[in-house]
Amino acid sequence: MPGRPRRVADHRVVEQRVSGHRVVILGGGFGGLESARRLAKLPVSITLVDRRNHHLFQPLLYQVATAGLSPGDIAEPIRSILRKQRNVRVRLGEATSISLADRTVTLRDGGRRDGPQKDETLSYDTLIIATGVGATYFGNDWAHLAPGLKSLEDAVTIRRRFLSAFEQAEREPDAAARRRLLTCVIVGGGPTGVELAGTMAEMSFRSLPGDFRTVTADDPRVILVEGGPRVLAAFGEESSAAARRALERRGVEVQTGQRITAIEPGLVRLGGAESHCEIPCGNVFWAAGVGAEPLTRTLGVELDRAGRVRAAPDCTVPGHPEVFAIGDCVSLTDPNGVTVPGVAQGAIQMAVYVSRVIAARLKGKAPPRPFAYFDQGQMATIGRSAAVVELGRLRLSGLLAWVIWLFIHLIVLVGFDNRVLVLTQWAWEYLTFRRGARLITAAYHGRADSPHL
Amino acid sequence: MPGRPRRVADHRVVEQRVSGHRVVILGGGFGGLESARRLAKLPVSITLVDRRNHHLFQPLLYQVATAGLSPGDIAEPIRSILRKQRNVRVRLGEATSISLADRTVTLRDGGRRDGPQKDETLSYDTLIIATGVGATYFGNDWAHLAPGLKSLEDAVTIRRRFLSAFEQAEREPDAAARRRLLTCVIVGGGPTGVELAGTMAEMSFRSLPGDFRTVTADDPRVILVEGGPRVLAAFGEESSAAARRALERRGVEVQTGQRITAIEPGLVRLGGAESHCEIPCGNVFWAAGVGAEPLTRTLGVELDRAGRVRAAPDCTVPGHPEVFAIGDCVSLTDPNGVTVPGVAQGAIQMAVYVSRVIAARLKGKAPPRPFAYFDQGQMATIGRSAAVVELGRLRLSGLLAWVIWLFIHLIVLVGFDNRVLVLTQWAWEYLTFRRGARLITAAYHGRADSPHL
Repeated sequence: MPGRPRRVADHRVVEQRVSGHRVVILGGGFGGLESARRLAKLPVSITLVDRRNHHLFQPLLYQVATAGLSPGDIAEPIRSILRKQRNVRVRLGEATSISLADRTVTLRDGGRRDGPQKDETLSYDTLIIATGVGATYFGNDWAHLAPGLKSLEDAVTIRRRFLSAFEQAEREPDAAARRRLLTCVIVGGGPTGVELAGTMAEMSFRSLPGDFRTVTADDPRVILVEGGPRVLAAFGEESSAAARRALERRGVEVQTGQRITAIEPGLVRLGGAESHCEIPCGNVFWAAGVGAEPLTRTLGVELDRAGRVRAAPDCTVPGHPEVFAIGDCVSLTDPNGVTVPGVAQGAIQMAVYVSRVIAARLKGKAPPRPFAYFDQGQMATIGRSAAVVELGRLRLSGLLAWVIWLFIHLIVLVGFDNRVLVLTQWAWEYLTFRRGARLITAAYHGRADSPHL
Repeated sequence: MPGRPRRVADHRVVEQRVSGHRVVILGGGFGGLESARRLAKLPVSITLVDRRNHHLFQPLLYQVATAGLSPGDIAEPIRSILRKQRNVRVRLGEATSISLADRTVTLRDGGRRDGPQKDETLSYDTLIIATGVGATYFGNDWAHLAPGLKSLEDAVTIRRRFLSAFEQAEREPDAAARRRLLTCVIVGGGPTGVELAGTMAEMSFRSLPGDFRTVTADDPRVILVEGGPRVLAAFGEESSAAARRALERRGVEVQTGQRITAIEPGLVRLGGAESHCEIPCGNVFWAAGVGAEPLTRTLGVELDRAGRVRAAPDCTVPGHPEVFAIGDCVSLTDPNGVTVPGVAQGAIQMAVYVSRVIAARLKGKAPPRPFAYFDQGQMATIGRSAAVVELGRLRLSGLLAWVIWLFIHLIVLVGFDNRVLVLTQWAWEYLTFRRGARLITAAYHGRADSPHL
């Protein structure tokens, strides 16, 4: 293969010490987990590192934030998923830096309780970076005022704040103050924002008020703020319009073309091109920006503005064929000109591709063609019995879309036990309009949003 | 009724302002909740105060601590349980003091996020104190070293520490150090201690090692320490012996007649009458002493050593017929000489009794006879398919006892949806030996036991 001498040379080196070929995978999300599985039959010794012990089914995280599911329903221990794959070790710990020159990863030790905390070093022959993204506030210090939704802890924080606002409003005699407490602003009109807004509106106007005596269905407001001209910008215009209608039918106030200029305790400021306004509110939830975890900054390679690695067409880090970067932490435009979206499908397809590259190298074969993303469609749910689905040319909205959404999500949920439980719980909630996990949990310090809770 | 002139006089006073009769119930556990329900048809206005938003099915709390169930499976929002009972308001907040003279309760406000935190005052005509107990360490500062099991947060803490020890051991090359990390000491041989020890042993020796590569079933130790001569001291000797055998069959080292003299990081010291020993260990869990919440100390009435109210035969606070104390926070010996045990049945029976007393007063009738406890039997489970059950003269142990235990617990679980879910989850776990909620959740700070997690 002309023009690729370095890479071919590299394969040979790798091949010579194949029995001890060490693959380190950083991250146990969709990309990291799929990579590990796809390498099962190769003569490699894999170490998968994650700072959490569980793989998280992120597409349903908003259900935990809105009390529809328990954290345990959408998460499964990574080592339990991989228990039968003997060539993989799972390591709980946080990768804090990568040395491309030394081919090592430095880990901060998770879970050590006594004695000095030690940093440890892992050496790799091949590295797969799949560390994903976190919420980013475009340089503003808003994280404590407007929690994002990326982990189970985030979801439980949002659940606690959302439910606590109702508890607080219940003992507030002044109607205006109650209305302010129960005003909930959701920033970002992507799938997460739409799913949060739709579900929170259903809870605010329909399922929760019956539990309270002072709070009525007239008190809450749910406001979805989107900077662009429409919600679900990644979808077609028709789907966007259908989603907006479904949200508004549920009582969500959708504000497009509005940017957040400030978040203060109890207040959000919006500024559009010409107008400015203030919204007094009890809660702000952040579903807007995401950025790569700080780890990628230690690579010393070119990143995009969000801190994502600008990967080569074969998902490697430029100049380092032994290092792959996949999933949300990568910025990659494929040969067809498609920018790979930061969704589970993108991460999984990259993982499959990368495992084929590694297999080819180990077997001394020619590498596969550059990575090309295959769009399997996208979907978002707006709440009870409404969703938008785009599968190829098929565009659906409403109940049928929702049934498809439900079905696909149930099929792909990691563990069988989870799937049955989630189905049971949803069926029950669908029939009763009740949500089963409405817990405000936290060490009780008298204040519901103590940053340590 | 001779000898009770004061009380009868009191009833009349109460009766005159019946329409506005305010009942305040402190605590939404078994006692508080049952009291509220039993007062549903009386012309009273009830305020139920709890510092948490959920009623907790405490008998299954050890299942959350051992990753068998999710917190949401055994808890239900109090206001959701009482949503249809229009004469009750639920108030999230913590009662910090009671003024018997003024007939008021001071609440510290839970969940207020902005503005100064305000204390508020609730006035009552009748007060029911049902605040339960917390772990007590007999004056030692061991709470952070040896968490107790009284709340969902406690259960999640125990789960995190127990599972984190395995994560830590997995990367420990030294076998002795690994053994120390995986040594788990459970203090207290009552039902909670026995349930924790039995389940943790099953996990340690059977279900967890398969997920790990370095850790084997030879590494863990589970030690149950009991100060008295036998475990399950409240049961008959036969049941105690059966429980001990069942524990030992599962690999638990049962040490009776041993008192804890010190707990230090990584170490427990035991002292019996003649011997002393040290156990290096990774985890200590506390299932020994319980004491009433600090609230009872603000009453200014006689308490027992554990801080429990010494109630009059009709469950009132001596000298204050308008104040009842029920459940675990009460020390009461009934007319048959039976000391009411601190179990759900005791609280529920007292709640039923107290509601009858209140009803009699409101109707100007004679009060019922003093409270007498009816022992409905007791049971404890040792793990998968083993339990001891004592129902009247019936004494059972083994599989049949376990089925009875399972059945009774499923029947009484508060919400129907929970019941179906719990059954599904258990059936799955029973068949697979896997536990579905093995999550280590906490804001990640690199150390698993940061006190704020």
